[in-house]
Amino acid sequence: MNTQKSGVGVGVIGAGIMGADHAAILSRHVTGAHLAALCDADSERANRVAAECHAGKIYKDPAELIGEPEVQAVVIASPDHTHADLVLACLEADKPVLCEKPLASNPGECQHVVRAEMKHGRRMIQVGYMRRFDPTYQDMKRAMMRKGMGRPLVLHCIHRNPAAPGTTSDSVLASGAVHEIDIARWLLGGEIVHAQTWSPIPGGEDAVRDPQLVLLRSNTGALITIEMFENAGYGYEVRAEAVCEKGTVSLEAPADVRVRYAGSDSSEYPSDWRPRFALSYRNQLQAWVDGIVNGTSCGADAWDGYLATTIAHACIRSLKTGQGVEIKAETRPEFYR
Amino acid sequence: MNTQKSGVGVGVIGAGIMGADHAAILSRHVTGAHLAALCDADSERANRVAAECHAGKIYKDPAELIGEPEVQAVVIASPDHTHADLVLACLEADKPVLCEKPLASNPGECQHVVRAEMKHGRRMIQVGYMRRFDPTYQDMKRAMMRKGMGRPLVLHCIHRNPAAPGTTSDSVLASGAVHEIDIARWLLGGEIVHAQTWSPIPGGEDAVRDPQLVLLRSNTGALITIEMFENAGYGYEVRAEAVCEKGTVSLEAPADVRVRYAGSDSSEYPSDWRPRFALSYRNQLQAWVDGIVNGTSCGADAWDGYLATTIAHACIRSLKTGQGVEIKAETRPEFYR
Amino acid sequence: MNTQKSGVGVGVIGAGIMGADHAAILSRHVTGAHLAALCDADSERANRVAAECHAGKIYKDPAELIGEPEVQAVVIASPDHTHADLVLACLEADKPVLCEKPLASNPGECQHVVRAEMKHGRRMIQVGYMRRFDPTYQDMKRAMMRKGMGRPLVLHCIHRNPAAPGTTSDSVLASGAVHEIDIARWLLGGEIVHAQTWSPIPGGEDAVRDPQLVLLRSNTGALITIEMFENAGYGYEVRAEAVCEKGTVSLEAPADVRVRYAGSDSSEYPSDWRPRFALSYRNQLQAWVDGIVNGTSCGADAWDGYLATTIAHACIRSLKTGQGVEIKAETRPEFYR
Amino acid sequence: MNTQKSGVGVGVIGAGIMGADHAAILSRHVTGAHLAALCDADSERANRVAAECHAGKIYKDPAELIGEPEVQAVVIASPDHTHADLVLACLEADKPVLCEKPLASNPGECQHVVRAEMKHGRRMIQVGYMRRFDPTYQDMKRAMMRKGMGRPLVLHCIHRNPAAPGTTSDSVLASGAVHEIDIARWLLGGEIVHAQTWSPIPGGEDAVRDPQLVLLRSNTGALITIEMFENAGYGYEVRAEAVCEKGTVSLEAPADVRVRYAGSDSSEYPSDWRPRFALSYRNQLQAWVDGIVNGTSCGADAWDGYLATTIAHACIRSLKTGQGVEIKAETRPEFYR
Repeated sequence: MNTQKSGVGVGVIGAGIMGADHAAILSRHVTGAHLAALCDADSERANRVAAECHAGKIYKDPAELIGEPEVQAVVIASPDHTHADLVLACLEADKPVLCEKPLASNPGECQHVVRAEMKHGRRMIQVGYMRRFDPTYQDMKRAMMRKGMGRPLVLHCIHRNPAAPGTTSDSVLASGAVHEIDIARWLLGGEIVHAQTWSPIPGGEDAVRDPQLVLLRSNTGALITIEMFENAGYGYEVRAEAVCEKGTVSLEAPADVRVRYAGSDSSEYPSDWRPRFALSYRNQLQAWVDGIVNGTSCGADAWDGYLATTIAHACIRSLKTGQGVEIKAETRPEFYR
Repeated sequence: MNTQKSGVGVGVIGAGIMGADHAAILSRHVTGAHLAALCDADSERANRVAAECHAGKIYKDPAELIGEPEVQAVVIASPDHTHADLVLACLEADKPVLCEKPLASNPGECQHVVRAEMKHGRRMIQVGYMRRFDPTYQDMKRAMMRKGMGRPLVLHCIHRNPAAPGTTSDSVLASGAVHEIDIARWLLGGEIVHAQTWSPIPGGEDAVRDPQLVLLRSNTGALITIEMFENAGYGYEVRAEAVCEKGTVSLEAPADVRVRYAGSDSSEYPSDWRPRFALSYRNQLQAWVDGIVNGTSCGADAWDGYLATTIAHACIRSLKTGQGVEIKAETRPEFYR
Repeated sequence: MNTQKSGVGVGVIGAGIMGADHAAILSRHVTGAHLAALCDADSERANRVAAECHAGKIYKDPAELIGEPEVQAVVIASPDHTHADLVLACLEADKPVLCEKPLASNPGECQHVVRAEMKHGRRMIQVGYMRRFDPTYQDMKRAMMRKGMGRPLVLHCIHRNPAAPGTTSDSVLASGAVHEIDIARWLLGGEIVHAQTWSPIPGGEDAVRDPQLVLLRSNTGALITIEMFENAGYGYEVRAEAVCEKGTVSLEAPADVRVRYAGSDSSEYPSDWRPRFALSYRNQLQAWVDGIVNGTSCGADAWDGYLATTIAHACIRSLKTGQGVEIKAETRPEFYR
Repeated sequence: MNTQKSGVGVGVIGAGIMGADHAAILSRHVTGAHLAALCDADSERANRVAAECHAGKIYKDPAELIGEPEVQAVVIASPDHTHADLVLACLEADKPVLCEKPLASNPGECQHVVRAEMKHGRRMIQVGYMRRFDPTYQDMKRAMMRKGMGRPLVLHCIHRNPAAPGTTSDSVLASGAVHEIDIARWLLGGEIVHAQTWSPIPGGEDAVRDPQLVLLRSNTGALITIEMFENAGYGYEVRAEAVCEKGTVSLEAPADVRVRYAGSDSSEYPSDWRPRFALSYRNQLQAWVDGIVNGTSCGADAWDGYLATTIAHACIRSLKTGQGVEIKAETRPEFYR
């Protein structure tokens, strides 16, 4: 029903859950932009999402979408292992890109992307760590800054999904814990210099390691605990508590509607992240589009994306070796300040 | 920064808090429409809001805005006593209109508007009872419908503002309680047939009556209690609990960020309705625009607006007389089905 | 196992739920007293409770228990209609008495008891409005007194049971709402001067009226709303919120253990009042025993019991007539100050 | 006012905060026992507490109290370093003893006590891990056992005090974390086999290490995280969450009275553990007294006390070395089954 074609022409790569979501948000909740093109290897899926979201053009090959003149900016929501190459292609085409997390499959690839952007000479890349745009995380950060709270000493993070069929011991960290890693860096400042991972092992050494517990240490001295549980059974939930010198700030699961029935008072959990972070994704896309129009940047940049993946991979190494892993604190390049 | 001019051209009458909000939402959060014009008797205010929201044109006289060819649909957010005449002018100009609540100053005026719309022969009017578009009220309604809950018997409503300097004993009901009246009708079905109002009187008989308690009876037998407190001091809060035969459903104030500090665990209240109902206003405007494009209607219609004001005025009469007031249950005209 | 026989010898009349509870508390949680005797018309029940609670003697006839020399003080927990006569018998025997609420079946009987106590010349009677001894109600009252809160304007009370098979339209008020009436008087001060009662009637005019809504007005101008629901289905719950000039104080259902499971976050309700008010009953009995030893009195006296029943019966009359009922504010006799 | 002298004669060693509390509970809330004697090196303190609690006799020397014939059982609430010797003296006097945690200053001393009790040939020692008697921890355990929850995988524990002037890096663990260690063992079953401790270090390496984070691994594979913060500033709070295969059970800080005032909704924290665990201490003492009368035992025994201290000392070693510490899982002796 929305037939506007004004504003920035955005192309979305990938029509899976995340891509379809980005396409829908672009077509319904973002002003100053329109969904110019969509691409997915699965044509049927591409056609269905394109129809729902009034995409201008449909492609199978992401390279063609990136090359399409009406596409002025690109959202990458294809499988993780394709991210790095697609981001590089966008850089080459000189088109701003919002890449779903993680930025790349491993720290080396991330570094490659960072170097390419620096060589390009202008900031083109935002990484989809959408929690930075979540109103409740923003409220949390504001509350942590209040006069009298003192420095943050510990941050506890809990991140649970009801079920994640394809979970591997690595993906719990590389694809799940990266959200916690990024938001911890954003909330606390400082840089992570040490990581250690554990997992309960009632399923035996060969089972997928889920849940996992991570302990990170920042160069400010602060500690971060993360519980990742991809198959927690009951629902999707994200919580956090920042323990400061004189008080704490916590972020709770929303519970605005409560049902009293059959002996209990209950509130519902969503079955995935979309209801919880619906506004975050909208705000992220709107801010990204606004930034393109205004020539400013916001959110997590490629350097942040590189660090999140670097830290997640240190956690993976720790899980494998059973030892803590040092992370070399690198100075943020001038380019990313 | 958003320069799009595509979609439905909307004119907003009034650049006060509500008008400015509608203008901002139209320019930032609604797709398929643009802010074609804005008008306010106060030129400075009109200019400021128009600049912030990229309004195409600025008027002092609402009649000119309504007559402007680029304005295809109108949002009325001017003072309450102007609503009826402006709605009638929109009807005359054959332009769809979203009128802030209340629809008119009194039941008679509302009835006049209803008749004019019926004579016009096509549904043109939506009244800004935005809670119908609030995700939590929608969740509440869904939960009330669950198998096993049984019929709703009682609905408790609480509605508090921190301070409302211009409050009168009448405005507490005509301008505040109408929200509760409309959402009660929407949640419960049935029609209100009896109203009674009380107020604590520690300030004496001459003081503004605030808070007020209202008891409504529906023709289904259900009872509704409303506490309206315009000067509650502590913050803006809306709560509700529907008591059904086998359970209850309650809507609570959001408390997603909690601060532990200096001996207490606390969450913050906003100082007005905007944070609480931000999404409701967005969703309402988007649905209204979509309805214009698609030729459908949604939300509270003129008949609902007429009933809300009729019931509020019965509450006012009850407050004055100290007696309960019968309300004649009228059959919804075919036109509004 | 507890074989102590020191301290005040207490006789308990009635071995039903309430009597058994009082007996158990006396034998397990109260110091300075022992359960000297127990009586119940049902010998088997009396024997069972007496064995569990190590009661010294067992009677069928309450008069004999009252006459027993080892019984120095009496707890009355027999059916409501027997209260007045038994209290009078205790007065005659010059034995302090803690009478379960209500003090008597109707205001006239209560008045008779009050006069008898005044004639006796010494305070002998406490009425079992145990909420006055509840730590959370006490916390609530303290919070209402805080500097800056201002005067209480409205008190909302909610009182629900999961099921009450023998409920009558009258007992909802005479036996249930009396708790709310007493605690409202205790929290707010002032005296109730007007009562009105409503009930949703989806079951028709002949059905038992449950739930019921009550509105009381105090001579301070404050208003009290009460929702009584004896067959609320889901569990036992008591809540309250005092709305003061500058803030509110609410008393919530405890939810200290929460279970996240199968899509929801839930806490459990008890199936009756005992877990919620376990401490209140203990504290009440201990304070009563301490008062006997120290020659002081505390809790609700016969005058309070008279007023609670008087107000409840005004509510009953209102339910029957559909009209508000005035209650003559009587001056508390010097004897009860 | 309570002058009863029946039941078990209990002597309390120590009239500091804990000793005074035990004495008060014995004199007011426990049946089947009386406070036969009290001792403290500080006579004034001893006299004051003895007067308040109607202690029969007052001593300076604990040996005399233990030897006093009217003292049939002993509560030890003197400084931690005195515990072991006093427990041994009670064993020698053949008097049942409830010893405040920790059982002794270090694992070696604990082991010595355990051996002495085994040699004595009859169970005489209970250690004051009172949380096992807390109704909410008991509810939590019950909820964890529910059909469908699956095995516990992770237990998160948070334990904060507003301020603890004398805190040392060791006492955070030896005196504070021992509560978490004991309750974790009680909730999860299994035995702790590995411990690791961290602390944020914004105060530098020389500062007292507070807060501290502990990670324990059980021989069932389950993991336990503990946050201990003795100077958390805002209040006393204990929370926990058990993460099971299909759901979680959490224990929250009570928040039954909520105040809405000046922009926030808040509930209060106590300034120390006494309000939170008042019932636990009462229930513990009552159960201990009942056990003496009935010849049964309950609560944490000397073996549990030995393990809690052993694990806490492993945590201390880990904090010092920066390495994880293995704990040899020992088989519970037949004597303690």
